[in-house]
Amino acid sequence: MRATTIHGPRDIRLSEVPAPAIAAPTDAIVKVVAGCICGSDLWPYRGENPIDEGSTIGHECIGVVVETGSEVRRFREGDFVVVPFVHCDNTCAHCRHGAQSACMEQGWTESGQAEYSHVTHADGSLVKTDGPPDDDLLPSLLSLADVMATGWHAAVSAGVEKGSTAVVVGDGAVGLCGVIAAQQLGAERIVAMSRHESRQRLAREFGATDVVAERGEAGEQAVLELTGGVGADAVLECVGTGASMDTAFAIARPGSTVGFVGVPHGVELPVRRMFQKNVGLAGGIAPVRRYLPELLDLVLARTIDPGKVFDLTLPLEEVADGYRAMDERRAIKVMLRP
Amino acid sequence: MRATTIHGPRDIRLSEVPAPAIAAPTDAIVKVVAGCICGSDLWPYRGENPIDEGSTIGHECIGVVVETGSEVRRFREGDFVVVPFVHCDNTCAHCRHGAQSACMEQGWTESGQAEYSHVTHADGSLVKTDGPPDDDLLPSLLSLADVMATGWHAAVSAGVEKGSTAVVVGDGAVGLCGVIAAQQLGAERIVAMSRHESRQRLAREFGATDVVAERGEAGEQAVLELTGGVGADAVLECVGTGASMDTAFAIARPGSTVGFVGVPHGVELPVRRMFQKNVGLAGGIAPVRRYLPELLDLVLARTIDPGKVFDLTLPLEEVADGYRAMDERRAIKVMLRP
Repeated sequence: MRATTIHGPRDIRLSEVPAPAIAAPTDAIVKVVAGCICGSDLWPYRGENPIDEGSTIGHECIGVVVETGSEVRRFREGDFVVVPFVHCDNTCAHCRHGAQSACMEQGWTESGQAEYSHVTHADGSLVKTDGPPDDDLLPSLLSLADVMATGWHAAVSAGVEKGSTAVVVGDGAVGLCGVIAAQQLGAERIVAMSRHESRQRLAREFGATDVVAERGEAGEQAVLELTGGVGADAVLECVGTGASMDTAFAIARPGSTVGFVGVPHGVELPVRRMFQKNVGLAGGIAPVRRYLPELLDLVLARTIDPGKVFDLTLPLEEVADGYRAMDERRAIKVMLRP
Repeated sequence: MRATTIHGPRDIRLSEVPAPAIAAPTDAIVKVVAGCICGSDLWPYRGENPIDEGSTIGHECIGVVVETGSEVRRFREGDFVVVPFVHCDNTCAHCRHGAQSACMEQGWTESGQAEYSHVTHADGSLVKTDGPPDDDLLPSLLSLADVMATGWHAAVSAGVEKGSTAVVVGDGAVGLCGVIAAQQLGAERIVAMSRHESRQRLAREFGATDVVAERGEAGEQAVLELTGGVGADAVLECVGTGASMDTAFAIARPGSTVGFVGVPHGVELPVRRMFQKNVGLAGGIAPVRRYLPELLDLVLARTIDPGKVFDLTLPLEEVADGYRAMDERRAIKVMLRP
């Protein structure tokens, strides 16, 4: 099959690789209808993460089940499914506690930017729609494989509740989905920290009531002013750098929680400030499967439209262009159609 | 008045210093009935914190109000009060959110090991008993000024709930009070990590169902075995060193929270592990005032008896002996009577 592979920094190719096959009786194979590029794919793309030369890349997709192992009970050929980027049995102790991303049988989507994808523990991992979904819903359904669920996890981890003032640090696809999540969870005021006009517009469309374009200390000051010197009730950290984490802790009011979902790179947590101000940290790799039933309902009812984060759609052959567009921030998020 | 002062590492003296006076109309002066030595007093005592030579030390006391400022409404001469080690107005935005230890009008008890103590924002800070309490209740009432409320904060921050498996890291007075808190909050299994027999005994008396005497990796393995390889639902970190924090994160199950109340010294938080396992961190300086009404009821009803952490009572004159006893771990906690 054709799959996206990475061979070095900024060296993305569409290659011919062996198609995935059922390896365990709980596996399923999904024919990819749409995949996409994640902000976290840019870490290896930029050479900031180690690269396993020639390996497939891409962990988000939706598609149609084409084969199932002998023990898969809930899915069969032809089912349209969302594939969470972390697979889980959804029955182990960690899953039962809502930490499906740390499932004892954890697996990963390894070829989301490809023609086929392999899913472990299909019964636990997948969710399906009733029949094939309307075409215009595909982007939003695709967002559930990672970014919408990840933004949701940031908001849940930060403890957003009815009436909260929530601040979203980061205006990538996850941050923008975090705005949707904060709004759905009842935040009264949602501050999007973004300096890109197109992203600011989308943030407002998703429910942001305020936009702070400044960064660093100026941005922190702006948030403190917006909150009457108190700070935010909930901060969604959707970047993962040391600078964004510092901002998150600087604007979180005492007694609040920073919900973090950006893969940490060069982060040193301010433990003394956390202690003195009673600001907690929660979050991590999103337990996508935990939120999927609820998020699928919201998408199918057209209550939320996270698919708007896809502002560029390319045929799979042009995946390298997609990476370039995201790297140069010309696109928020790129959808790929095999 | 006579007050305990610190002059250098291991140099504790009882000195004559000016008695505190009303400085603001919201102040009160309390005649100390009992004060005590805190584990955190040992940081400067051991020279691990900077010392302001000749300054008073000691932040925990109970006593009788002897003078109030003109704006104090809720207290008057003769009231028996618990003095939280952090003072607060209990009305600002942070206090209303339960973060009284980060009150915008924050003040501190500065002479708890002395004859008199000065309380700022008395109306917000203090709680009183109905009339003078029974003498045998004094130790438990004194524990409410810090350690019992701090152990409670660890348990609340760690999210202990009915049926939880809670692990308490640290067998000092705070850790032991953490055991009480975990039990009151409904934990089904409470593991005390302690290698001192007398403290193990007290932990069991307070509700610990299991004791792990090992430290470091061996201790972590022991807890994992006790929990069937899953890890703890809630971890109370009651020490504050790098080693104890590492243990806390090693034994917390994915999706759980480490509640930390030990003043961090040399702690580097394992942000990647936190991210990968979805283990959060919450807590900090205990908002004592928030918990006081509830804890006072529990003590007065004799439902809890945290006063048992005081295993040595000395006259104030012998305060230097008290420090030595705690430093050498001959005493869990020392009560001082002026």
